[in-house]
Amino acid sequence: MNLIVIGIGLIGGSFAKDVKKIHPDTQITGIDKSEEHLEEALQLGLIDQKGDYTSLATADMVFVSIPVNALVKELPKILDSVGDDTVVIDTGSTKELICAAVENHPNRRNYLACHPIAGTEFSGPSAAINGLYHGKTNIICEVEKTAFKLQERALELFQGMNMRIRYMNPSAHDKHIAYVSHLSHISSFMLGKTVIEKEKNERDIFDLAGSGFESTVRLAKSSPDMWTPIFEQNKENVVESLEEYIQNLETFKQLLLDNAYENVHQEMNNTNRIKQILKGIPLTKS
Amino acid sequence: MNLIVIGIGLIGGSFAKDVKKIHPDTQITGIDKSEEHLEEALQLGLIDQKGDYTSLATADMVFVSIPVNALVKELPKILDSVGDDTVVIDTGSTKELICAAVENHPNRRNYLACHPIAGTEFSGPSAAINGLYHGKTNIICEVEKTAFKLQERALELFQGMNMRIRYMNPSAHDKHIAYVSHLSHISSFMLGKTVIEKEKNERDIFDLAGSGFESTVRLAKSSPDMWTPIFEQNKENVVESLEEYIQNLETFKQLLLDNAYENVHQEMNNTNRIKQILKGIPLTKS
Repeated sequence: MNLIVIGIGLIGGSFAKDVKKIHPDTQITGIDKSEEHLEEALQLGLIDQKGDYTSLATADMVFVSIPVNALVKELPKILDSVGDDTVVIDTGSTKELICAAVENHPNRRNYLACHPIAGTEFSGPSAAINGLYHGKTNIICEVEKTAFKLQERALELFQGMNMRIRYMNPSAHDKHIAYVSHLSHISSFMLGKTVIEKEKNERDIFDLAGSGFESTVRLAKSSPDMWTPIFEQNKENVVESLEEYIQNLETFKQLLLDNAYENVHQEMNNTNRIKQILKGIPLTKS
Repeated sequence: MNLIVIGIGLIGGSFAKDVKKIHPDTQITGIDKSEEHLEEALQLGLIDQKGDYTSLATADMVFVSIPVNALVKELPKILDSVGDDTVVIDTGSTKELICAAVENHPNRRNYLACHPIAGTEFSGPSAAINGLYHGKTNIICEVEKTAFKLQERALELFQGMNMRIRYMNPSAHDKHIAYVSHLSHISSFMLGKTVIEKEKNERDIFDLAGSGFESTVRLAKSSPDMWTPIFEQNKENVVESLEEYIQNLETFKQLLLDNAYENVHQEMNNTNRIKQILKGIPLTKS
């Protein structure tokens, strides 16, 4: 297979590793705006050679893993350059604006809108790991708009990576994901900010913080370049989820101020259900 | 050594395991209000026999790992019953009220106020693990009020577990810990609540949530019985940290509403420093 990965960082690089494992004969071409990342990806053996958009016409598969603001700009150009038999897969954490950007593109049938729920808080080619996608959920939007033969090619590969496929429309995706992903990142970033502001002497944090704090702020290590455009594109849903989150925090604070400790206990007890809900979420080593 | 563990769950049970490893000859007696937990601890070999407060007089060391509201009530009774040569160690996540509760106790010299920053989101004897305390920080308060010889006995054991000792006064402890521990638990519980409320169909959460969400809500699995009294005893500091956290979330929300994405990027970029700050925090397998 002839695979082109556009944006050869954690997501694209890990995909390249898995494809090589499943189809060792795959020729992988890397495209990235950062010459440094391209060089690094070549050194690490994530790609076989560098390329550019002129290489797209002969590709069997194009895997696009770039920030969502770049996706909206580049995806139409990518579709301009692909061949009839090329399937283009993206990995954007938002779907509504991205699907809208190519809605009327003559080659819309070559595009499969995807969001694999996989990643770590690290980024760049060196962050690429084996098996990142194993057992993970892959949300596919507007599948009916993609040529059947091209769907098949992508799905076969996803099955080879043991991914769970879920079909959704773009607006439902963006709404759900605001809660289970985007909001977590904001709560984590702001928790980190609150503690850093308070603990001017960072030594104190290091000495007193335990694994619980580390786990809760883990996402605050994430890349602002990747996340700023996600929040921008999903602004409406993210703001809504933030308002509900803040409201719940306010309520909890008020219960403390009212010494309503039975309610405080109940609030936590009800939320303990998350144990059962989360059972089976595949954890990424990171 | 003759060790008595009062409250034989995750914290007490893991301590018992480590002591047995360092001093295999240690006789460990368990005391717990739950007959079921005591039985389980005996089955699991965490303790050698069951006991009661009459056993305290002859103990070399008493390790008290019970909820902080119980600590305030029981610690004076425990000190009533200990012998001259018994050192009593607690593990309360709050220190101000606990230290105040025994401030004028005739046996205050037998008590060493401790808070080992170690744990998992699980609880009960079956949650006890080996090496929970290895490399963790142990905050000791008002060390000058403990008999020197008894301090030594405790510190030798802590060193054997490779714990990092930090000395603090109770009010500084409660203030710092509100930020690096108590606030994380509330942010996690309320995140879990927000998502559960939104995703009435829990199947959706399970399908869409990734390891990032799992990590951020991990603490929402924690025990309400343990955490309600902690929030009650540290109410003032916890409310203050909550207010600052909510304010930071409001600011972030406003930046989104104002489309001030450069500031959004900067907020996250500044908080990325947490990477460096957190390096070296010992992670608990859980």
